[in-house]
Amino acid sequence: MPRRGVATRAQVSGKLSKMLFELSVSDELGRYLEQLEERSNISLEETASVREVRKQYRRRKAIPPELIEEFNIARSKSQATWAEARRTSDFALFLPHLKKMVEYARRFADYYGYEDHPYDGLLEEYEPGMTSVQLRQIIEPLRGEIVRLIRRLSDQGSRPDSSLLEGTFDIDTQRRLARRALKVIGYDFDAGSLDDVPHPFTTAIAPGDVRVTNRYVDAAFTPGLFAALHEGGHALYDQGMDEKLFHLRLARGASYGVHESQSRMIENVVGRSRPFWMFFQPILAEFFPQFTHASPDDLYRAVNVVAPSLIRVEADEVTYNLHIMLRIEIETGLIDGSITAADLPRRWNETIERYLSVVPANDAQGVLQDVHWSMGSLGYFPSYMLGNLYAAQLHAKLRDEVTDLDERIASGNLRALVDWLRENVHRYGAVYPPTELIQRITGSPLDTSHFMRYITEKYADVYRL
Amino acid sequence: MPRRGVATRAQVSGKLSKMLFELSVSDELGRYLEQLEERSNISLEETASVREVRKQYRRRKAIPPELIEEFNIARSKSQATWAEARRTSDFALFLPHLKKMVEYARRFADYYGYEDHPYDGLLEEYEPGMTSVQLRQIIEPLRGEIVRLIRRLSDQGSRPDSSLLEGTFDIDTQRRLARRALKVIGYDFDAGSLDDVPHPFTTAIAPGDVRVTNRYVDAAFTPGLFAALHEGGHALYDQGMDEKLFHLRLARGASYGVHESQSRMIENVVGRSRPFWMFFQPILAEFFPQFTHASPDDLYRAVNVVAPSLIRVEADEVTYNLHIMLRIEIETGLIDGSITAADLPRRWNETIERYLSVVPANDAQGVLQDVHWSMGSLGYFPSYMLGNLYAAQLHAKLRDEVTDLDERIASGNLRALVDWLRENVHRYGAVYPPTELIQRITGSPLDTSHFMRYITEKYADVYRL
Repeated sequence: MPRRGVATRAQVSGKLSKMLFELSVSDELGRYLEQLEERSNISLEETASVREVRKQYRRRKAIPPELIEEFNIARSKSQATWAEARRTSDFALFLPHLKKMVEYARRFADYYGYEDHPYDGLLEEYEPGMTSVQLRQIIEPLRGEIVRLIRRLSDQGSRPDSSLLEGTFDIDTQRRLARRALKVIGYDFDAGSLDDVPHPFTTAIAPGDVRVTNRYVDAAFTPGLFAALHEGGHALYDQGMDEKLFHLRLARGASYGVHESQSRMIENVVGRSRPFWMFFQPILAEFFPQFTHASPDDLYRAVNVVAPSLIRVEADEVTYNLHIMLRIEIETGLIDGSITAADLPRRWNETIERYLSVVPANDAQGVLQDVHWSMGSLGYFPSYMLGNLYAAQLHAKLRDEVTDLDERIASGNLRALVDWLRENVHRYGAVYPPTELIQRITGSPLDTSHFMRYITEKYADVYRL
Repeated sequence: MPRRGVATRAQVSGKLSKMLFELSVSDELGRYLEQLEERSNISLEETASVREVRKQYRRRKAIPPELIEEFNIARSKSQATWAEARRTSDFALFLPHLKKMVEYARRFADYYGYEDHPYDGLLEEYEPGMTSVQLRQIIEPLRGEIVRLIRRLSDQGSRPDSSLLEGTFDIDTQRRLARRALKVIGYDFDAGSLDDVPHPFTTAIAPGDVRVTNRYVDAAFTPGLFAALHEGGHALYDQGMDEKLFHLRLARGASYGVHESQSRMIENVVGRSRPFWMFFQPILAEFFPQFTHASPDDLYRAVNVVAPSLIRVEADEVTYNLHIMLRIEIETGLIDGSITAADLPRRWNETIERYLSVVPANDAQGVLQDVHWSMGSLGYFPSYMLGNLYAAQLHAKLRDEVTDLDERIASGNLRALVDWLRENVHRYGAVYPPTELIQRITGSPLDTSHFMRYITEKYADVYRL
């Protein structure tokens, strides 16, 4: 669309959002919900729909509308200031806005209500059923195990040679490669598109209309390819939902964490696996002939280098969760008041050094790197970690049930993988809450041992331990 | 958007249209109109807005809603059947649907009301103030003059050599040429886009968001270039409207005919003029180097061949109006019952032979060629003719006021042209009814002598009479 069309579209979209919001907190909807909650002869999906709409109704009505309006204005300013602060690495500039965003998050948590810790009131938005106590129980043992694994890889492992990935890569060829990769994983281009943007994301307008966006850099093909696989994983979930869920408002992920599990499954568990590269190396060579004689095994190892780094979005799958844990610790502390906003840079830098032995040269590479807090989105970060944990647990179950999964993938047949995900995860959308969904599929609640086993075995192999 | 997204979008768009329709015939709107009509202290634009909304309100409420619904269903079937009938050149297949569409149009005309002829009730939709009596007064003398001019060109003229236009033209280069041509005429790409479609059209979403679409064939660059100029003419109108008209619902053409006058002005009066080609030949040669040594004059003459043909959309500017006159005569007869639908093929073929000395080999090349009647859009065709007539009259005035217009265009300066159109036509949108607008600008009502003088002088030059 033309640049100058943005303002009118924003007006229209703002008007429609307002109408939608008003309907979503209306007394009329309240009466419908009461009537539906009294019924006993409604289907599983309808029951789930009532549960989810009721929850949204309750949470939306919990906050005074004038507070939401005030917050929206403050958030716009906060985000704009954060962008400027990150550019100039000036935490002091952002600090007053961060304080305000934390204060709003606290007030929202109070309005939403919680049993144990105010952070739980925020978590409910992103990962229903999850609590800060559970998060602590997950993080405490996991953090040490990951730190020890990283040390072991670095001390005893044979770091893969990633120099074979170097080069300059034509952007349009990368675009076509991304398209091919999406076809390989079963992304339906009749029900989905692929376009360019500065920050990749996936939007599901309806099950038959999913939009994947991606970006490419010419210095490497891997960011564009793995981002496509990541977004493709989200997109498979959105395309795989039962269409009847759409009008029940259940055509979305069971949670942000479960949605992220699907993207991480395709990007990492599948896309950075040895069987995948056995099959994908000749495809890569079709687009970039310099890889015609590359060994699939060398490529597999090259895309799995573990390198402690400062930036979350560039982190490998071993170190990634440590970046998230750092953020969860800080968020929780900000919300319960045990950490002050002003103390963030010191706290951040000390912690990341303890976890990863790296020290940010400035706050742009540290505490200012992510947009989330500037938008007041406290409580979102755990979803990233949970996505990795769910992915490993689901993958373990999947390999139990599809015993020749690796052979199939190595021969380019991803059908069984995608069918299993569709049958067990995708088609249900938000019918089951995340805890119930994981329990139903795997027979047990969230169990972090799958993730540890997965990375321990994989990286012992990659690093030839 | 992905193919499978179409159904959901149609649902959403249908729902919004229904809401909009209900608002547009609501008692609430009626009360607002009454209140506004009593006010005397409102601006010129507000008065025009009330007039236009009142008119739409009256016409929409005139038709029983169930009849509109019935018509919409019948129209879908009719259009689908017409497409099939045109493909197989089977008029009998389309006939029952055509009869129905004529019957609906007649009933609508009765509901809308008219003074003299039922066709006037339909015309009001497209060309407010125009009547079938006036159309007859325009057509009768003009038809003979055009037929005589065509005969003179063919008998005594020197037909230009268009073989220099032949070749194979890379589609993407044509796309870039179209973009350049749009820039040349002053199309604002910050407020407009250019994309590919099978049938070119222009949509104005808002004054800052105009979408031009175009198509290209590789056997010739002229259809793609002139279609771009045509749509660009529409787009300049849409981009040039005063932004405050948008919310007054006046950000649209004064009529379909006036809108068409802007596209025909840019496509033909400017785009097929000698000064334009003096300036545009080197630009064309930038994109297609085979024209580096083509003479601007040869190009000018080559794009102005007059060739009586069967198909309206391929017609040159001399024969074009005859195609329209044929359709107006038939439409008027269908509406007042003096022509029966079954008699159409015979009637069509006889008339086009009389006007243009060509005979359709089949009905696909004759009476079945246009979509309009299959959609029940009787009364639309006159706008095409009026567009040509208005364009010539406006251009005469423009040349009076900008005396060095041709020199400016020949040197690539189209600013004065576009500024004049913006100042006199574009910015007013639908503030003035078409008759009033033409009178205000040119000092006289619609006067067909401008068009006859324009084509007579131009083609005497092109054909070296």
